[in-house]
Amino acid sequence: MSELSELRSAVADLRAREEIRELLHRYGFAADIGDALAWSRVFAADGVYDGVDGQLAGRDQFYRALDDPDGTHKRDIESRGSLHTVGGLTIRVDGWQAWAEGHALVWVRAEEGYRVYSLTYNHWDLRRTSDSWEITRRVSRPVAPGSARSVFTAWARYPGGYPGHSPTDG
Amino acid sequence: MSELSELRSAVADLRAREEIRELLHRYGFAADIGDALAWSRVFAADGVYDGVDGQLAGRDQFYRALDDPDGTHKRDIESRGSLHTVGGLTIRVDGWQAWAEGHALVWVRAEEGYRVYSLTYNHWDLRRTSDSWEITRRVSRPVAPGSARSVFTAWARYPGGYPGHSPTDG
Amino acid sequence: MSELSELRSAVADLRAREEIRELLHRYGFAADIGDALAWSRVFAADGVYDGVDGQLAGRDQFYRALDDPDGTHKRDIESRGSLHTVGGLTIRVDGWQAWAEGHALVWVRAEEGYRVYSLTYNHWDLRRTSDSWEITRRVSRPVAPGSARSVFTAWARYPGGYPGHSPTDG
Repeated sequence: MSELSELRSAVADLRAREEIRELLHRYGFAADIGDALAWSRVFAADGVYDGVDGQLAGRDQFYRALDDPDGTHKRDIESRGSLHTVGGLTIRVDGWQAWAEGHALVWVRAEEGYRVYSLTYNHWDLRRTSDSWEITRRVSRPVAPGSARSVFTAWARYPGGYPGHSPTDG
Repeated sequence: MSELSELRSAVADLRAREEIRELLHRYGFAADIGDALAWSRVFAADGVYDGVDGQLAGRDQFYRALDDPDGTHKRDIESRGSLHTVGGLTIRVDGWQAWAEGHALVWVRAEEGYRVYSLTYNHWDLRRTSDSWEITRRVSRPVAPGSARSVFTAWARYPGGYPGHSPTDG
Repeated sequence: MSELSELRSAVADLRAREEIRELLHRYGFAADIGDALAWSRVFAADGVYDGVDGQLAGRDQFYRALDDPDGTHKRDIESRGSLHTVGGLTIRVDGWQAWAEGHALVWVRAEEGYRVYSLTYNHWDLRRTSDSWEITRRVSRPVAPGSARSVFTAWARYPGGYPGHSPTDG
């Protein structure tokens, strides 16, 4: 590979990571604003959300989960005032596929101050379309003894170093 | 645009985002250390902070807000032990201008452990000088029902994808 | 320096920052999973952890700190369900050396919901080997009045701007 094409692929990798972080922030923004359409589109058309309360599949279900006035989201989260956050992300991009692992924390406003509504370990599978990255599958489990290992499945397999990157490059 | 100049502008964009995240961390470091000068210089000379307790404008006011022994900062935050954090950032850079949107969380030490002093939605406008990025305007509102939409004004307009970046690039 | 070699070193710097953030996330993943070997290898063979409860030095000590069934980690953290997070990172890379400063927050599951087990200011010194980055020294102190200044020692010396980067570059 020529030096220029190596640089090109290093920059594409950095940009993809940035895009994926932004997509996960967009997920949170859309949830906190209550924008069901934007939130459903963070997922792929055939996307699956495998969470603690069961499974959602497809954009219609995602849309309804955010939009239903009697649903958990409107009633217990958005109507109280919420903040969805993600962090500690490890991301690996392979062309038009990627995965990310990290945590998610949802704050809701309480009588006094704020309380942690949920704190989870997460694995996301992602796919790139002609427009943007989308989540094809999210697995999410509450922080509890023993559950990290069942969610952080990709992390366990990746080497400590940066794939395809020799430290002598720098 | 030649391939080299495309790479050059992609890298400039990634670096600018990194610089802006660092500036917002610097804001927090300076506040937690109580360095009024460093904190006031995170803002532009004509910078405005439009927060929940009113508005601060110009570096003299920023300096005094951090330095006043009877002010909220010294009394209720720094003197207790604090940690200012930001997260969930979406950033867009356009030459010497940029905006960022995301959350800010301030922890203060309590009798036992720590408590959330404030949790806010934020919009930052930024400007680049010959030395560094500066905040020209920060709008900040507590996490509460309905307030996200009034603060995250730029986010609502940006497309899901990465501007100027075709997925076929990678 | 030619334009290509400037680009090359800018990209190497961005990748090193990404690798270092990941290493610190790996530290947290390994702790939450209870993987003593992975955790001990986040540190250099001669690594030192200077924390509030004293000092650990060398991988044997790191391994035992995670692995001891009667130790603080297994008893008070991992067995309850934990989440180690870092944030607010400022990073400077200089060839095969680097430092990072920022905060660390450890959540543990409580009777109801989650509580902050520790919230600290941190300085990390890092070294790059032929395989990956390693922590050579971590200094960590609880968020409390006056302690930020004693930990954030590198931060105080770096200029507001981005070293080696003229704003006219973009």
